[in-house]
Amino acid sequence: MTRQDCIALDAADPLRVHRLQFALPDNLIYLDGNSLGALPHVVVERLHATLSQQWGTDLIRGWNRHWIDLPTVVGEKIAPIIGAAPGQVICADSTSVNLFKLLAAALQLNPGRTVILSQDDNFPTDLYMAQGLSALVGEARCELRQVPEAQLLNSLNADTAVLLLTQVNFRNGRCHDLQALTAAAHRAGALVLWDLSHSAGAMPIHLDSWHVDLAVGCGYKFLNGGPGAPAYVYVAARHQAAVIQPLTGWMGHAAPFDFDQDYAPGAGMLRFLCGTPSILGLSALDAALDLWADIDLEQVRLKSQQLGQLFIALVAAEPTLGVLDLLSPAVADSRGSQVCYEHQAGYAMVQALAEAGVIADFRAPNILRFGFSPLYTQFVDVWDTVVQLTSLVSNGTYQQPRFQQRGLVT
Amino acid sequence: MTRQDCIALDAADPLRVHRLQFALPDNLIYLDGNSLGALPHVVVERLHATLSQQWGTDLIRGWNRHWIDLPTVVGEKIAPIIGAAPGQVICADSTSVNLFKLLAAALQLNPGRTVILSQDDNFPTDLYMAQGLSALVGEARCELRQVPEAQLLNSLNADTAVLLLTQVNFRNGRCHDLQALTAAAHRAGALVLWDLSHSAGAMPIHLDSWHVDLAVGCGYKFLNGGPGAPAYVYVAARHQAAVIQPLTGWMGHAAPFDFDQDYAPGAGMLRFLCGTPSILGLSALDAALDLWADIDLEQVRLKSQQLGQLFIALVAAEPTLGVLDLLSPAVADSRGSQVCYEHQAGYAMVQALAEAGVIADFRAPNILRFGFSPLYTQFVDVWDTVVQLTSLVSNGTYQQPRFQQRGLVT
Repeated sequence: MTRQDCIALDAADPLRVHRLQFALPDNLIYLDGNSLGALPHVVVERLHATLSQQWGTDLIRGWNRHWIDLPTVVGEKIAPIIGAAPGQVICADSTSVNLFKLLAAALQLNPGRTVILSQDDNFPTDLYMAQGLSALVGEARCELRQVPEAQLLNSLNADTAVLLLTQVNFRNGRCHDLQALTAAAHRAGALVLWDLSHSAGAMPIHLDSWHVDLAVGCGYKFLNGGPGAPAYVYVAARHQAAVIQPLTGWMGHAAPFDFDQDYAPGAGMLRFLCGTPSILGLSALDAALDLWADIDLEQVRLKSQQLGQLFIALVAAEPTLGVLDLLSPAVADSRGSQVCYEHQAGYAMVQALAEAGVIADFRAPNILRFGFSPLYTQFVDVWDTVVQLTSLVSNGTYQQPRFQQRGLVT
Repeated sequence: MTRQDCIALDAADPLRVHRLQFALPDNLIYLDGNSLGALPHVVVERLHATLSQQWGTDLIRGWNRHWIDLPTVVGEKIAPIIGAAPGQVICADSTSVNLFKLLAAALQLNPGRTVILSQDDNFPTDLYMAQGLSALVGEARCELRQVPEAQLLNSLNADTAVLLLTQVNFRNGRCHDLQALTAAAHRAGALVLWDLSHSAGAMPIHLDSWHVDLAVGCGYKFLNGGPGAPAYVYVAARHQAAVIQPLTGWMGHAAPFDFDQDYAPGAGMLRFLCGTPSILGLSALDAALDLWADIDLEQVRLKSQQLGQLFIALVAAEPTLGVLDLLSPAVADSRGSQVCYEHQAGYAMVQALAEAGVIADFRAPNILRFGFSPLYTQFVDVWDTVVQLTSLVSNGTYQQPRFQQRGLVT
């Protein structure tokens, strides 16, 4: 394998045209789209229209003309990306807020059971929101059990109301067998609530055919909706007649503009809305999602795996990089769209890489995280990253300790 | 009073320069800034920078360079508008979500008391969020009592944990005596939670000196932050050491990027953050708030009252408009920055006004609502609106019934 081979792979890549749809800085390799997706050009155009025309000119009339149905419109654009038939996805609030809605809903849908089962290295906000719900309603009604991944199956029992998992682990990139775990939870009488933030848009997901009950996910990673983009909620159609959720804001009311004194849940997914949604955020995500209309997620997954396997192979072939310990699964099928290594100087290495024009990410205490976004990451980016990494490890230019306590690393 | 007199009032208006800071369509009179504030020019510039430079170029580095402190920065810009010393306001989520946080916090701060006391025509989402909390934790721990305004004082008792009110009524424009009601609640041992959505930016508010405990408000009315702008939370400093809230998302953690498994609340107001905030929404509001740096809120209130009194006087002086019943208080001190009339054909009248280039608002079943935003509403706008209203009432051009069920009216 040579750099020229990588350039040839890029030239033959059926997804290569999509890179042109993004605003990517010159002379920068961006391997952190799994944390914040890059800016699609269409978002700039759309926000210009949302500001100047919709808000500036239409003013309050913008609600009827453009905005009132956006949470549904955006949800329906996300639905095919996660394998959901229409009427089951709506876009609203943050992933954290949506976790609270669905955890409370799961407990209500599965009466007599009180345990939320999760794994101890789930993404923190998933655990925190369950902890907050438990503290509010009391442990007797809602108890979070956080167990190591290996104990998940054995921990499913007659107390388990809902199994709460993130499909791809944020720290090490491990990818759960979503279908098998869903089936196991169902055999134990539990519901499942999947957080798709680190997987949606990076691989095919089939929520409906895998009989998933509930799911959430964010809009700002592989969906490229921008920093703090609104998140989404999936509730399988079979649960919608019975489901309620506690954040009963006016936008989820059956007739919000009747201004009734008593809450009455809106039909279907509308009841998962809460307050007035961020129209700027929804507009950006709505535009970004149009990129997915003609994209084959099997092709996305294939390229994601090829990028990852190339990265692992190139690192393994470079003796200088033997100091890095592969943390992610080496087998592509067990991995999301990121490859992680451990090194005690991981933080300084990621900083030094950024100075050399390669944006990767760091997770405490010692993890270097490289994310691949198949819509815009190139094979030659992988090659060049390994060259830069080799150079800085050889030269020892990473050894400055520059850790900062609050805030992201890069 | 003549149209020329109104033009003279505008020429002498010390706030007149601010109108130039907004993008207002030609040939349109906008009297609905109390529902959605107009677009400040600086927001367009700021969003361009947020998109192209901060997101597009800085990518994930945008979090450290621009975004991680925005909820605090924006909160501190709102603080002087509502009379709060630093360290007590943070910007996050929607008003509805923030109501849930603070209602739960109030119950926890006032143990042994279980009643949320509110008025039956409070803004619906305030009631709905209390109903949702009550349904989640059970009536034994949280009961919402909705009483008519006249019964509020008599209903404060030893069960009242918190008095939940909106300062200015969305439907009729009545303005509570916030200071007196706060004192009355405190005498009864209750806390207060004020919703400032319909008053902040329209009149001076002194949360600290009026000893308010808790407050929320939205960013998209008189603060001009755009459709669905993020909302804010105020917690008096004296409560901050003891307060907790149940929506314990990762952004409110003491060290979010340590990715600990257990939630630990951030210092001060940081614990009122939940999930990843909408950066596009925060950026727009942040820019819009810069307009307030040199604005005297006493002057804003004075002009707001002058506009309202002029409107009432002109309507009263026009015999044709005797068919309209004034719903708002005639006394300016008892009113927010809106004037409302009742008429059985109110919906059709507001529609006909919009077709004539005057955007007002309608509230079911029969209320015409005229809002005055002192930063950009002119005295001549009031004159011209009454002329248009007189014309359409005289001609009977409003009699088409065109009511629509879901969505706003205009």
